Amino acid sequence: MTLSEIAKLLNIECTSTHEYEITGINTLKDAQKGEISFLSDSKYEKELSATSASAVILPAAKAHLLPNNVAALVSEEPYLMVAHLSKYFAKPIQSSSITPIIGNECTIYPTAHIENGAKIGSGCTIMSGVYVGADAVIGDNVILYPNVSVYRDCVIGNNVMIHSGTVVGSDGFGYAHTKMGEHVKLYQNGNVIIEDDVEIGSNTTIDCAVFGSTVIKKGSKIDNLIQIGHNCIVGEHCIMVSQSGLAGSTILGRNVVMGGQSATAGHLSIAPFTTLAARSGVTKSIIKGGVYSGFPLMEHKLWLKLQAKLAKILQ
Amino acid sequence: MTLSEIAKLLNIECTSTHEYEITGINTLKDAQKGEISFLSDSKYEKELSATSASAVILPAAKAHLLPNNVAALVSEEPYLMVAHLSKYFAKPIQSSSITPIIGNECTIYPTAHIENGAKIGSGCTIMSGVYVGADAVIGDNVILYPNVSVYRDCVIGNNVMIHSGTVVGSDGFGYAHTKMGEHVKLYQNGNVIIEDDVEIGSNTTIDCAVFGSTVIKKGSKIDNLIQIGHNCIVGEHCIMVSQSGLAGSTILGRNVVMGGQSATAGHLSIAPFTTLAARSGVTKSIIKGGVYSGFPLMEHKLWLKLQAKLAKILQ
Amino acid sequence: MTLSEIAKLLNIECTSTHEYEITGINTLKDAQKGEISFLSDSKYEKELSATSASAVILPAAKAHLLPNNVAALVSEEPYLMVAHLSKYFAKPIQSSSITPIIGNECTIYPTAHIENGAKIGSGCTIMSGVYVGADAVIGDNVILYPNVSVYRDCVIGNNVMIHSGTVVGSDGFGYAHTKMGEHVKLYQNGNVIIEDDVEIGSNTTIDCAVFGSTVIKKGSKIDNLIQIGHNCIVGEHCIMVSQSGLAGSTILGRNVVMGGQSATAGHLSIAPFTTLAARSGVTKSIIKGGVYSGFPLMEHKLWLKLQAKLAKILQ
Repeated sequence: MTLSEIAKLLNIECTSTHEYEITGINTLKDAQKGEISFLSDSKYEKELSATSASAVILPAAKAHLLPNNVAALVSEEPYLMVAHLSKYFAKPIQSSSITPIIGNECTIYPTAHIENGAKIGSGCTIMSGVYVGADAVIGDNVILYPNVSVYRDCVIGNNVMIHSGTVVGSDGFGYAHTKMGEHVKLYQNGNVIIEDDVEIGSNTTIDCAVFGSTVIKKGSKIDNLIQIGHNCIVGEHCIMVSQSGLAGSTILGRNVVMGGQSATAGHLSIAPFTTLAARSGVTKSIIKGGVYSGFPLMEHKLWLKLQAKLAKILQ
Repeated sequence: MTLSEIAKLLNIECTSTHEYEITGINTLKDAQKGEISFLSDSKYEKELSATSASAVILPAAKAHLLPNNVAALVSEEPYLMVAHLSKYFAKPIQSSSITPIIGNECTIYPTAHIENGAKIGSGCTIMSGVYVGADAVIGDNVILYPNVSVYRDCVIGNNVMIHSGTVVGSDGFGYAHTKMGEHVKLYQNGNVIIEDDVEIGSNTTIDCAVFGSTVIKKGSKIDNLIQIGHNCIVGEHCIMVSQSGLAGSTILGRNVVMGGQSATAGHLSIAPFTTLAARSGVTKSIIKGGVYSGFPLMEHKLWLKLQAKLAKILQ
Repeated sequence: MTLSEIAKLLNIECTSTHEYEITGINTLKDAQKGEISFLSDSKYEKELSATSASAVILPAAKAHLLPNNVAALVSEEPYLMVAHLSKYFAKPIQSSSITPIIGNECTIYPTAHIENGAKIGSGCTIMSGVYVGADAVIGDNVILYPNVSVYRDCVIGNNVMIHSGTVVGSDGFGYAHTKMGEHVKLYQNGNVIIEDDVEIGSNTTIDCAVFGSTVIKKGSKIDNLIQIGHNCIVGEHCIMVSQSGLAGSTILGRNVVMGGQSATAGHLSIAPFTTLAARSGVTKSIIKGGVYSGFPLMEHKLWLKLQAKLAKILQ
């Protein structure tokens, strides 16, 4: 799709008369030559001058901040424009003609479905009803229990065990909104990377990144019925207990423990060695490791004190 | 099953000597000629006089409220009687001999199972391990990702995308209780209707209605691991974030936003354009749109004020 | 594996010069001759003198508490040692050469996968994508809806209905921790027993016991998206509403009702006929049945009083 075709499709003005073939959409920071990017939040404004994108969708008032060789596509609703455009760059479910490559000594159940382009290491057990998407890469000694889904492009390390019904790499929950209150899907073209020695329980969901990767680092253990949003990074040796959740783009440091039904808002950073008690709800980044409880969150000791005070109110 | 057979089966008295063939169970409001209904909650008493049901199970003291041509089956435990009876009217899993009808340009994976009587529109992708029940109707350009289950009779519109492991139309959670503390299943004979342009995430569960339909209206976006109980109606362009839940028979107006892990009790009505913050718990209907938080629920501004007051208690 | 091989594998001292063939790992209470056990929590110390285990891993200071005929394997990190060892006693996914035994009048969908060694009773419906593990035993008139997973060794009674995507018997969430912050899996070799007349909703997860059984007793009804941890016992005729959870080893008495999104900590005992309101969080055992709410939990009446007091604070 060329730059002028995009401008026409979105019905917006393009400052450049040069013609580019646009090959993908990416963030200002990660976009390469040939890709288009966008500015939807002014906090990323400072990334405009250094972007390698060939074109950027952005409001008129910001167009002058772009380097000379980067085309501006002008819109007051850049996020909505990108959402509309993303459909045209969405990867198809099937896109490869290469028969899956399967390592030695694997057990692949007959009802498992492995798409073309996928690679599976040695010593793996891929059980009944498992789905492995196009171009997914699975390491050695991996067990995928029945009915696990691994979407396209996901990467799974060695010695990983994923229990029944868990979904790795389904679309993150991202939409732009029209003035009429409709939601336009931002197609999620990233993936999930699961490092070595990770175990994931049953019926957990880990969303693929919108751009880039959602990452579960080495040695982390994830229980059942957990939600991990797009672009999250779960550090090494973290523990997430059942029914907990991470909203998008939140980063857990190493050895973070999240109790049952605890959750965080999105775009937070949680310090290494933080323990979040069951049911705790995190709305701000945690700078210093420790034990925290409650919603709103506070130090666990303080939470106990608060409960004692509330008990007194009742007397 | 005839009226007298039903009276005999339930071991209860029938006021009518006329014999009817009873073809189904329904609510007082929706029952048609030939159907049996019941009065288990006095708030529906006013519907007795206008019911089109051929027979009604109800307490002796209410029998005189029925029109002359409607038979009364007298029981002081009408809900329990209906539960016992519902088993005999439950639809079987397989009930059609008509080979599924599949539209043009569909991709149906070989391990998908489509029951007889189902219809699938054009341009659909029905992936591995998907189940489509008897007499289900799927629109055009629908993607059902791996291991999605669509139970019998459900109706899915056009341009709907449902991610892996999501279950549409499993039985609602409805039981009558005996005096000995046992739970008798009320077989759920309704369906789920999902309108156009809806996207549903992974491992979400949407129960079928006990009678009638659970409905997800046009353009709504439902995230992962969400529970939607029987007979709920989710309005147009709603957003439900991961791990939120709706108990049975609750109605969301258009453009309601439910934050992560928020939930409502059953039989509530939530005003259009209401935003429920993450973790909020709704126990009463919301008449006026706005932003609400907390459990018990309050205006978000008030909730912030409460948290400030509680913080002071700790000083 | 012999005792001396185990001592060598774990690199720990063994007090016995006798040689035993060790056939399994179990608790001090349940271990039989030929099995190895461990003492990781001093509250089980009193069980040392009566254990039938052939060997016990325990700290040096406790070795003298063992009967003369029980070998001591000395470690200051007994739980970690057992975790390392458990891998060698883990049951394989496939372990039988006996073709599954299927009762009369069953409907087994072609994409269901039933492992060797499994037995299925009469009148069952085993739908598409269902997995039944090795040596699992399914009773009569059981319906397993699409994509249900039943792991090896699980036992399901008569007239049980399990809805789509539910996982029975996946590994409990149990790890020992190294001083470097790594988590070592304690392989879960127990099972799940589901008694007669139980109904389980969609996408629920019930973990197998680490040793022994997780049990769902007769007549209980479990909704969608529920977590039941390893070694829990759910009493007769309990009701668990959607998105509720039980952490490991908690026991519900008969007719306990758990509201939506409620949860308990682990190792608790909840009195019969207790009702836990929606969202309640239980951190201590409940001795006396009644209605409870809140987190921390209190009598429901008290919780209402607390909310009234908090409302006053805001005036």
